[in-house]
Amino acid sequence: MIHVKDEHAKGTLLTYRPDIKLLDCTVRDGGLMNNHHFGDDFVRAVYQACVEAGIDYMEMGYKGARSIYPPDEYGPWKHCEEEDLRRIVGENPTPLKLGAMADAERSDYREDILPADESVLDFIRVACYVHQLPVAMDMVQDAHEKGYETALQLMAVSVVPDHELNEALELVTECPAAAVYLVDSFGALYSEQVRDLTLTYVEAFKEVGKEVGIHAHNNQQLAYANTIEALIMGASRLDGTMNGIGRGAGNCPMELLIGFLKNPKFRLRPVLTCIRDALVPLDGQMEWGYRVPYGITAQLNQHPRAAIKMRNGDDPDDYVAFYDLMMEEE
Amino acid sequence: MIHVKDEHAKGTLLTYRPDIKLLDCTVRDGGLMNNHHFGDDFVRAVYQACVEAGIDYMEMGYKGARSIYPPDEYGPWKHCEEEDLRRIVGENPTPLKLGAMADAERSDYREDILPADESVLDFIRVACYVHQLPVAMDMVQDAHEKGYETALQLMAVSVVPDHELNEALELVTECPAAAVYLVDSFGALYSEQVRDLTLTYVEAFKEVGKEVGIHAHNNQQLAYANTIEALIMGASRLDGTMNGIGRGAGNCPMELLIGFLKNPKFRLRPVLTCIRDALVPLDGQMEWGYRVPYGITAQLNQHPRAAIKMRNGDDPDDYVAFYDLMMEEE
Repeated sequence: MIHVKDEHAKGTLLTYRPDIKLLDCTVRDGGLMNNHHFGDDFVRAVYQACVEAGIDYMEMGYKGARSIYPPDEYGPWKHCEEEDLRRIVGENPTPLKLGAMADAERSDYREDILPADESVLDFIRVACYVHQLPVAMDMVQDAHEKGYETALQLMAVSVVPDHELNEALELVTECPAAAVYLVDSFGALYSEQVRDLTLTYVEAFKEVGKEVGIHAHNNQQLAYANTIEALIMGASRLDGTMNGIGRGAGNCPMELLIGFLKNPKFRLRPVLTCIRDALVPLDGQMEWGYRVPYGITAQLNQHPRAAIKMRNGDDPDDYVAFYDLMMEEE
Repeated sequence: MIHVKDEHAKGTLLTYRPDIKLLDCTVRDGGLMNNHHFGDDFVRAVYQACVEAGIDYMEMGYKGARSIYPPDEYGPWKHCEEEDLRRIVGENPTPLKLGAMADAERSDYREDILPADESVLDFIRVACYVHQLPVAMDMVQDAHEKGYETALQLMAVSVVPDHELNEALELVTECPAAAVYLVDSFGALYSEQVRDLTLTYVEAFKEVGKEVGIHAHNNQQLAYANTIEALIMGASRLDGTMNGIGRGAGNCPMELLIGFLKNPKFRLRPVLTCIRDALVPLDGQMEWGYRVPYGITAQLNQHPRAAIKMRNGDDPDDYVAFYDLMMEEE
């Protein structure tokens, strides 16, 4: 349905938007739960599913600084070295574009990100908080000059004051990022806010030709709804993960997104195969998806870290004590 | 936010709609999972939470025909007899209104629903599919004449053709139901469709003064988003359940709804207490909440019964086989 960019009126249930591009961040965002220690079989299953499902982009992990994330503590997908990548994807002889995320101030990007023609990676997505934007812009420039397609992930937009956001978006118009993502890090945004923010982003970038993306979290069970809302308002880059895996409440489920899009270039069955064979076996090993404490932190417009800590603690079901704690904090 | 009836423009994050009324259907809808065998402690905990949270209505269960639902097979909340009700609520000396649902063609309503002044129940909600509307209208009339507040639950609206729906809504204007609910039985509706349908309902009933309600299912993780959407478009009666409990993917979570509403008449903490003490212990005994197969049936606009059966079968995680099965069916 809908899929009619630049029209807020309803579309039809039987059309689709050919400009939509899907990015799978299963391994990257999911890796935040296990310090990026996913086994090769898991990463291979996700890669295979992305290729077969016709997904456009797959994020393999991070380009994290070894000084901050020592390799004896963090798995291979925190650093995305070529030999690890190629063990899974070979030369990646597929249309799927591979990439990594680099966090502002947490990546030795100048050294660790190789020239694109020496890497099997195709894109670099730079993530930053608004105060880190100058650093992030430099990182985007660096990756761009090395030959990568680039994108910018401006995190935690729900706590950025309007005037700062406007200034930030204006600044971003000058950088070479092909896409800028609206990122609801706290899962705090309601669809109406996503609507307004997406319009702001689309308006800011339409003259410079940048695409707008959406990366939603499911803390309030709104990741999928908000992704659809952004799509309707003109976002064309959508993030999803297999079965919604991701730290805390997780992300927008790729299986729902593909079902919704109805674009013949995407196929659902390989995604279901991946979920059955690679995600279901994680049940009991790691927990993701909506739980009450994530709803509480989201409605307080806070990072879910207190909720994640609580779910990993001695009393993961005492929602009342958690609520009292959150309400007492100043 | 929003809460500004009759305005589609954005509202504010700090206002609320005083006309909103919440209905808890935890025991009624949740009972579909266990043939209404909830223990007294569970029902009492939900009742207590509803009273303390300031919830307006609580559905205690069904007025189901004993010939169809024999009491040796179905628990007390399938029949809601006075002695069972009063064991939990006494004379219900609280502002909380209690009620039961009666299904068209599955209730001996003339005999089994007592005159209101002999019952601790305050309201009767009649549920029907569109072809059962004449029966349902008679049931509403019967309950109204017995002194109850009445409501009508027109189920599975996602498969009702527009012209039938319009005819149905016109017919419904003549019955004494105080509220008519938009019911997404299959969890198939996207927010845009909920928007349009809510406007249709509001328009149909504004002159006869009936309120419009929403009862959403979470098959696509859209129950909460769609409830908010209906609210924005003018619905004032909202259904929720504790922790989203309900058959299959469940319902709109009451804890999220109350957090969203910001209406000082509602309180979140008693709901969290109920979830901790009564819902969490059900974990492992019954399953509710989004799972992949519910997304599949919803996107096919079908009843989730095949998905529920599959989740209760020998191979609850073979999403691929399930998808193949659903795609093969004609």
